[in-house]
Amino acid sequence: MKLEERIRAIPDFPIQGIMFRDIAPLLESPEGLREAVERMSAHWEARGIVKVAAMEARGFVFGAAIALRLGAGFVLVRKPGKLPFRTRSISYNLEYRSDVLHIHEDAIHPGDRVLVVDDLLATGGTAKAVVDLVEQLGGIVEGISVLIELTGLQGRQRLPGREIRSEIIFEGD
Amino acid sequence: MKLEERIRAIPDFPIQGIMFRDIAPLLESPEGLREAVERMSAHWEARGIVKVAAMEARGFVFGAAIALRLGAGFVLVRKPGKLPFRTRSISYNLEYRSDVLHIHEDAIHPGDRVLVVDDLLATGGTAKAVVDLVEQLGGIVEGISVLIELTGLQGRQRLPGREIRSEIIFEGD
Repeated sequence: MKLEERIRAIPDFPIQGIMFRDIAPLLESPEGLREAVERMSAHWEARGIVKVAAMEARGFVFGAAIALRLGAGFVLVRKPGKLPFRTRSISYNLEYRSDVLHIHEDAIHPGDRVLVVDDLLATGGTAKAVVDLVEQLGGIVEGISVLIELTGLQGRQRLPGREIRSEIIFEGD
Repeated sequence: MKLEERIRAIPDFPIQGIMFRDIAPLLESPEGLREAVERMSAHWEARGIVKVAAMEARGFVFGAAIALRLGAGFVLVRKPGKLPFRTRSISYNLEYRSDVLHIHEDAIHPGDRVLVVDDLLATGGTAKAVVDLVEQLGGIVEGISVLIELTGLQGRQRLPGREIRSEIIFEGD
């Protein structure tokens, strides 16, 4: 199956000039969902990963499913005001806004091998923020697994030395 | 495993007087995550479910994983401004605020058997809104699967005639 054929391109969303890559048709297809999760997991088996960390909201779709496949636990990374326990936080910049992310301070134990998951690698800002939060807590980031990479935004440049796997590549931004 | 032992009670979050049930420790445990998803899925197998619908953000954690187990597709139900394609929307009231939810108008086909998933059944407002959105699109709601039910808030009264399964019950609110 060509996963990219299940991604819908929507121009000028959420703002003028952005070509939004809509994963909804892929998720709504049982085969698309299964294959996306299998491909995003397969490379990371037998790597000793004990936690998968993902940011709300679309990251949660893949994060928990991949954690199940890897036999790992799942760690919520959330926007301010959402996590009820003590947190660590980080500010980061995105393609078209800036934001703050939080992680529970007991979500990762020192030495935990962690896979960072998201639906999209664009500028790399979100992934970098999640990596930094995991490392603040003493976690070891084993790598980053995303469904879609927009190579025009050069997200990998913000994540030097990191192992990053993407299953669908769009060359624009 | 007693799933309820992995739920952390946090008083006065997000506002005074609310006892927040934090699922993070359960999700962070590989066994807790696996068992929660298995239990939330098992009852609904062999029911012809073709779509699982869940609301952001915590609903996405369980929704996609349950869809995978049931061999179904996954439908995103989101807050305003998040879904890029044409949507249907509904206003609803929650325990301590009101909100609007959206669904893509092509996410459900008439006659689709749909399981509604969420982490929590409190007043039933969110579940009722998702049920209504699914039915607006012609879907058949086969039932509702939640991890936690707060029976003190009597959410089932807002969902008469619906089949609802919860895996953990807290008798307060």
